Amino acid sequence: MNLLRKLLPCSLLLFSLLLFSLLPLRAQPADSLTIRRIFDEALRNGHGYRHLDYLSNRIGGRLSGSPQAAAAVEWGYQVMKSYGFDTVYTQEVMVPHWVRGDQEVARILNSSKAGNVDVAVCALGGSVGTGDKGIAANVVEVRSFEELARLGKKGVEGKIVFFNRAFDPTRINTFDAYGEAVTQRGAGASEAAKYGAVGAVVRSMTTRIDGFPHTGGMRYQGPVRIPAVAICTRDAELLSGLLKEDGSLKFYFRTTCETRPDVKSHNVVGETKGSTTPGEIITVGGHLDSWDTGHGAHDDGAGCVQSIEVLRIFKTLGIRPKRTVRAVLFMNEENGLRGGTKYAELAVRNREKHIFALESDRGGFSPRGFSFEGNPAALAKILRWKSLLEPYGLHDFSGQGGGADIGPLAKLGVPVMELVPDPQRYFDFHHTSTDRFEFVNQRELELGGAAMAALIYLVSEYGL
Amino acid sequence: MNLLRKLLPCSLLLFSLLLFSLLPLRAQPADSLTIRRIFDEALRNGHGYRHLDYLSNRIGGRLSGSPQAAAAVEWGYQVMKSYGFDTVYTQEVMVPHWVRGDQEVARILNSSKAGNVDVAVCALGGSVGTGDKGIAANVVEVRSFEELARLGKKGVEGKIVFFNRAFDPTRINTFDAYGEAVTQRGAGASEAAKYGAVGAVVRSMTTRIDGFPHTGGMRYQGPVRIPAVAICTRDAELLSGLLKEDGSLKFYFRTTCETRPDVKSHNVVGETKGSTTPGEIITVGGHLDSWDTGHGAHDDGAGCVQSIEVLRIFKTLGIRPKRTVRAVLFMNEENGLRGGTKYAELAVRNREKHIFALESDRGGFSPRGFSFEGNPAALAKILRWKSLLEPYGLHDFSGQGGGADIGPLAKLGVPVMELVPDPQRYFDFHHTSTDRFEFVNQRELELGGAAMAALIYLVSEYGL
Repeated sequence: MNLLRKLLPCSLLLFSLLLFSLLPLRAQPADSLTIRRIFDEALRNGHGYRHLDYLSNRIGGRLSGSPQAAAAVEWGYQVMKSYGFDTVYTQEVMVPHWVRGDQEVARILNSSKAGNVDVAVCALGGSVGTGDKGIAANVVEVRSFEELARLGKKGVEGKIVFFNRAFDPTRINTFDAYGEAVTQRGAGASEAAKYGAVGAVVRSMTTRIDGFPHTGGMRYQGPVRIPAVAICTRDAELLSGLLKEDGSLKFYFRTTCETRPDVKSHNVVGETKGSTTPGEIITVGGHLDSWDTGHGAHDDGAGCVQSIEVLRIFKTLGIRPKRTVRAVLFMNEENGLRGGTKYAELAVRNREKHIFALESDRGGFSPRGFSFEGNPAALAKILRWKSLLEPYGLHDFSGQGGGADIGPLAKLGVPVMELVPDPQRYFDFHHTSTDRFEFVNQRELELGGAAMAALIYLVSEYGL
Repeated sequence: MNLLRKLLPCSLLLFSLLLFSLLPLRAQPADSLTIRRIFDEALRNGHGYRHLDYLSNRIGGRLSGSPQAAAAVEWGYQVMKSYGFDTVYTQEVMVPHWVRGDQEVARILNSSKAGNVDVAVCALGGSVGTGDKGIAANVVEVRSFEELARLGKKGVEGKIVFFNRAFDPTRINTFDAYGEAVTQRGAGASEAAKYGAVGAVVRSMTTRIDGFPHTGGMRYQGPVRIPAVAICTRDAELLSGLLKEDGSLKFYFRTTCETRPDVKSHNVVGETKGSTTPGEIITVGGHLDSWDTGHGAHDDGAGCVQSIEVLRIFKTLGIRPKRTVRAVLFMNEENGLRGGTKYAELAVRNREKHIFALESDRGGFSPRGFSFEGNPAALAKILRWKSLLEPYGLHDFSGQGGGADIGPLAKLGVPVMELVPDPQRYFDFHHTSTDRFEFVNQRELELGGAAMAALIYLVSEYGL
């Protein structure tokens, strides 16, 4: 009896361990079959590529507040309606309305070596314009805010600050290099303005050396708003070289961008009701808005069509998820995150129980895994499904973070993940005129959608 | 004493296990640093991309026996000489000399629905020509040799056989789909000739539906040699559709390709002598020849420049390999494998001790791992290094097989591996006019070279 008392907790533990270790095994044969069917459907009959063709080539770039953004909302609604998902609706949200204006002009002036040279720039999103005549000033090149601070008012006042910190090419994950460099774009203008600069020129956010300027969001943090542009990396190298020869050269640029009053826009939501636990909500999404310079094919048309595919594939295969699954096309990720913020607000207001969210916003490239943010128990559960996903090239679960649009959900404690496609090519296209449909590969795109559907299926079956 | 006798083997085993498990740990810190330096060098200063530019755009397609193939030999020799590798030399080898002749012409004739339609074809490598006037005949479509056999002489004689088995799109690894479909290209003409066919038209080897015919090697197996062409997938679909409407349509094609007498060519070898065990040889290579329709950028200029990079990176970083490492640019992989065969022959004749060989011949895409062929103990050793390679996206060691050129070495018992890049895009370009430099991404290419250098470094340090 005494012995039994001692052994009992031990056997219970052993029994639990046994049960625990058997649970995923028990689930595997049927689940692996379902996941195989999901990938087969995506690779044989995927609709993502054709939807992306339409969204990219027929609607095009769709910056928040633009007619194209409104067209994209209508498109997303109609596509999901046409599939007959249980519910399709929009969520109203006010978004910033920044417009680029005329094609930007920029020129290196009076350099001792090359005289005047036209260079390729584009206004940063959110920037004020230069006024009709543009601005011309001497240039001071820096690679960090610390360097800028050391130069101080004396070195900066009346000048254009040229932020020329390059991507670190040795970062295997290019998103790490982006994270290290992008502060220049986001905060450079305001940092420069602190010391009396009259403009900011920021090296484009890419590993490549080429002629395409990359736009992207920036924010003013102080009272003084100076105009800011991105310069293509080829011309950043040129400007830096010419500055070394001749510090007295001037730089001219003209932008007519401006911020107009906020306009009404929408998230688009398609929903398949859960069969056994409809009150538990799983979100899968991408963002519908894009920058205006390209067609937003990788960023983030890919994530939108992949998210729609999750529900479409379930429906086509007759997979009725146990929990409610929502495909959400978020508005305004690029310059405000208003759509993602609104979605989380409504989740709280409507007392919804969100158990998981997944985003795809790293391009339509070959999927390699998922990154994660949230409580470790949820991750541990997901990692037990790894062997079900590895046959499809999904090996990497080491990354951290979900996507931007589901960040507000993550702040509420919802475990979030993001699809991790191969990152090597993303910043060739990101926020620039080459982010176009022809640079998306059909199999890579559809595989990404299938990977998302497989993960969502597992979460829907077993919860978190 | 008795007890001790019993325990001793047990402790020895434990001790060995302990030692065994500690060994890789001991090696890790220094090795992981070296591997980091290899990747840094490749990503900061890699030479592969610029070499590939030259090989693709200045020399171009380099089919065995062509002037371009000779130029490529000279190029490879000079590049490796210029780096000052310990030894650079060529190995003479006689290679087949097949020439394409005039631009191919092909036409669907008198179809009830579309009349006459020009279609895109290219002669298969090794095929005889049609003669100056071309051939025209009725068409019979099949998807397998079994189907062909069932039709027999009665259904096939005097006709053109249209082999239209498509790639299976659900294969995650596109090379599996290739393996399943490529028998049509290699043996289709001879199989058709058995039943009296007058020509063979083979669906191009790709997952895409597009307008590019894909060439590739074929072999005659019987006495009767009938001409064979590849048809682009778009026109394969068209022809199949029109045949369903009208089985009496005819197909015309004209090719003037021919096989000329063998010509002298060369493998190119660059060698870095091992510092402690120079008698043990490690080979890393790709093939220098390519098809003539494109520029052989992915297939296999990529493998050549990556192999040269292995030695170049070692030299630049001052890494003196313990064992001898050879970069080998093999001639004639595409239509004869004479270079790889010759290399193994010479290894035997010269009594060389080859301990390992690695090939890259799956395109210059983002590396995901390595495949393996050979004795399991060697693989077990390599798998112990996995944690050193995983930080660089090298997760997948599940594949089987080395490369074609090192196949003859594998037959001698040498453990072989092949770089496994992401396979999704390879057959978009393989053997067709779009296999060009502009479709190779710099980071992906250089990462592949670094992955190879890292693996070769480990084998060179620890043997197999």
